[in-house]
Amino acid sequence: MELKESIHQVKESSFRLASLPEEVRNAALEAVCRGLKEKEQEIFAANRQDLAAAEKNRLPAPIVGRLRFDEKKMRDCIAGARDLISMEDPLFRVMLRRQLDEDLVLTRETCPIGVIGVIFESRPDALVQIACLCIKSGNGIILKGGSEAKATNRTLFDIIGQAAVEAGLPDRFAVLLEDRQQIDELLQCDRDVDLLIPRGSNQFVQYIMNHSSIPVMGHADGICHIYVDAAANIDLAVSVIIDSKVQYPAACNAVETLLVHRDIARVLIPALADTAGSRIRFLGDKDTVRLIGCAPATPEDDGMEYLDMVLSVRIVDSLDQAIDHINRFGSHHTDCIITEDKDSAAHFMALVDSAGVYQNCSTRFADGFRYGFGAEVGISTGKLQARGPGGLEGLVTDQYHLKGQGQIVADYASGAAQFRFRDL
Amino acid sequence: MELKESIHQVKESSFRLASLPEEVRNAALEAVCRGLKEKEQEIFAANRQDLAAAEKNRLPAPIVGRLRFDEKKMRDCIAGARDLISMEDPLFRVMLRRQLDEDLVLTRETCPIGVIGVIFESRPDALVQIACLCIKSGNGIILKGGSEAKATNRTLFDIIGQAAVEAGLPDRFAVLLEDRQQIDELLQCDRDVDLLIPRGSNQFVQYIMNHSSIPVMGHADGICHIYVDAAANIDLAVSVIIDSKVQYPAACNAVETLLVHRDIARVLIPALADTAGSRIRFLGDKDTVRLIGCAPATPEDDGMEYLDMVLSVRIVDSLDQAIDHINRFGSHHTDCIITEDKDSAAHFMALVDSAGVYQNCSTRFADGFRYGFGAEVGISTGKLQARGPGGLEGLVTDQYHLKGQGQIVADYASGAAQFRFRDL
Repeated sequence: MELKESIHQVKESSFRLASLPEEVRNAALEAVCRGLKEKEQEIFAANRQDLAAAEKNRLPAPIVGRLRFDEKKMRDCIAGARDLISMEDPLFRVMLRRQLDEDLVLTRETCPIGVIGVIFESRPDALVQIACLCIKSGNGIILKGGSEAKATNRTLFDIIGQAAVEAGLPDRFAVLLEDRQQIDELLQCDRDVDLLIPRGSNQFVQYIMNHSSIPVMGHADGICHIYVDAAANIDLAVSVIIDSKVQYPAACNAVETLLVHRDIARVLIPALADTAGSRIRFLGDKDTVRLIGCAPATPEDDGMEYLDMVLSVRIVDSLDQAIDHINRFGSHHTDCIITEDKDSAAHFMALVDSAGVYQNCSTRFADGFRYGFGAEVGISTGKLQARGPGGLEGLVTDQYHLKGQGQIVADYASGAAQFRFRDL
Repeated sequence: MELKESIHQVKESSFRLASLPEEVRNAALEAVCRGLKEKEQEIFAANRQDLAAAEKNRLPAPIVGRLRFDEKKMRDCIAGARDLISMEDPLFRVMLRRQLDEDLVLTRETCPIGVIGVIFESRPDALVQIACLCIKSGNGIILKGGSEAKATNRTLFDIIGQAAVEAGLPDRFAVLLEDRQQIDELLQCDRDVDLLIPRGSNQFVQYIMNHSSIPVMGHADGICHIYVDAAANIDLAVSVIIDSKVQYPAACNAVETLLVHRDIARVLIPALADTAGSRIRFLGDKDTVRLIGCAPATPEDDGMEYLDMVLSVRIVDSLDQAIDHINRFGSHHTDCIITEDKDSAAHFMALVDSAGVYQNCSTRFADGFRYGFGAEVGISTGKLQARGPGGLEGLVTDQYHLKGQGQIVADYASGAAQFRFRDL
């Protein structure tokens, strides 16, 4: 079948999927857990095939690591799905119930967005998480995973699809894309796909945003800042900065630029350089270079996403200068202030225009799991729909229901009837 | 000053605007009400100037009607602003408060979107409504009104801006565009404008959507349906259909296509044609033509937005056929079922994929005022952010705040610390 026709069938299925009660969607998730467990040997065999190909193609070690789907990953996937089952239903929640007039009642209820297209990287466990989030939230699914995980993804997808349909989900509620060229076809399906969630490199996400009229949720850059205020605890600051950079520098929530108040710079920056040792390569403004003898930063380092063990350091004269720098050069992802001063923290949180604004903790906490959302489909730096890590709530929208007894607008326009608003 | 620089200054102001407490924003709205009242003669004089130009340019009567800004419009505008003052603050609402671990607390709070660009039609009262909604919700404002209302808009804008800034809003929180060519410049300001709300013709809205990477909220088409079920009350159906078409046929929430169950068609359609008389021109499928001798509909009439006293009529064999037709040809704006059967209504509401799904009342109720939102910036057929009429809630987003005591992710990754999620 043509890809566009397959995607259209997911759209057609999505209307019925949207109307299924929680019991059916949870039963589907239960069936998925059972199916994965029962067929784990089949999955591991497919994964060995992908790993062998990766080795043959000499893929870098980090990619091979992400590609591996072993018993631990299986346990985590099943635990994640069980967490979703126990979570409150995101659908059919009544957000507003208002009498407009006697016997004319407006309700606003949550409902699925419709069909979600997720393009994700090499980890096959992401396929399981995304599929389970979409099943719980009643959304049709278009998936495209990394080509290096092709065999594992196909096996996982077939097991999940079969289990969910046997448990009552509509046929063809999901489609798996297997060729990179199919992405361009997907980008054109603006009548059938309601939301795209691309995960991957800045360049890739930009490409998706520029080549489709389908709304995109996600982030291109992750340019996170830490600002160390004059009233900071030095040990705490050093520990949080190092974690924010070193714990996983390729992540979008790793810190890229450190801003330090001039009053504390002479103590903080050498202490940081000392503790970091050779783990972090520092680039600094003039005063920082003078303090620790690092390489100088260029103007291009403001707003640079290194995705590596590199940290740009700038000394600032005030809290407001730090805030201006962050709003100007940041990517509105996650930015942190280190301070013991409540007022400075409140000022920073009120004025920094980012999805996450932190005080005294690592920027690496910006993540759906760490926020207790069970999982995430992506982290959004956009301001519409989900901001920050998008879990179940990011996958639902609202619908207005109005039930009357024949009321017409002409009566309200003429004054023959009057609105009598009352929240019920 | 260059337009792009002016827009950038609105962005810069928006951070401070976002941090202002409710008292200041409400005081600004009070000042706006006073300013409008005190300077009403100045406003009426400017409006007379626009009306004279409209007469000279022989603009059509409906446009001249919308252009008029008289004492009644002034009263409505001030009443609308006072309603907004009394409404609950949409900002700083805590949507989530969760302990992730001891002394590591996540909150999700509502905050303004940032800078909103609204391009609206000829009514100058729309300028007042939109500006007041943005002031209440703490958003920076870029406004572009119809050129035929240029003098009125400029006068209103200056009065509102001066009053609000004197009451404590930051300088340059708003900009008024006066030339059509400036719209193209606005569309390029994707770093400074967070959301565009274009109001106007289908073609115009499509143009905006296709020429900017700024997210757009609104609707291009308003293709609304009414489906008359077999179990309908005939008198109620006829009255609701006529209101939905005749009360204001150029509105986006006017009905364009009528679907009638075969079992009731022979009674309903002639009764409707009879009551409508010459007010509505009907186009019908074969069986409808046979019943009332109207002109035949062509396949192009499915999904056609007439914006006129024209109604396309189709007989269907089942509720599901009606639902399929609506999901396929509708624009996901507002669709209504006329039925006395609760189960049919529930099935229709569960499966129709539109912002508003109604039972037994006019589609013309789809409007922010009629929903009790005080006002609306636009009606969205998109599914992200606001769906349906967008009032204050459509103009806010969320921000995550995380406050810790130096927690680092490495400890949670190594198992040295464990998350202890607890909603507070």
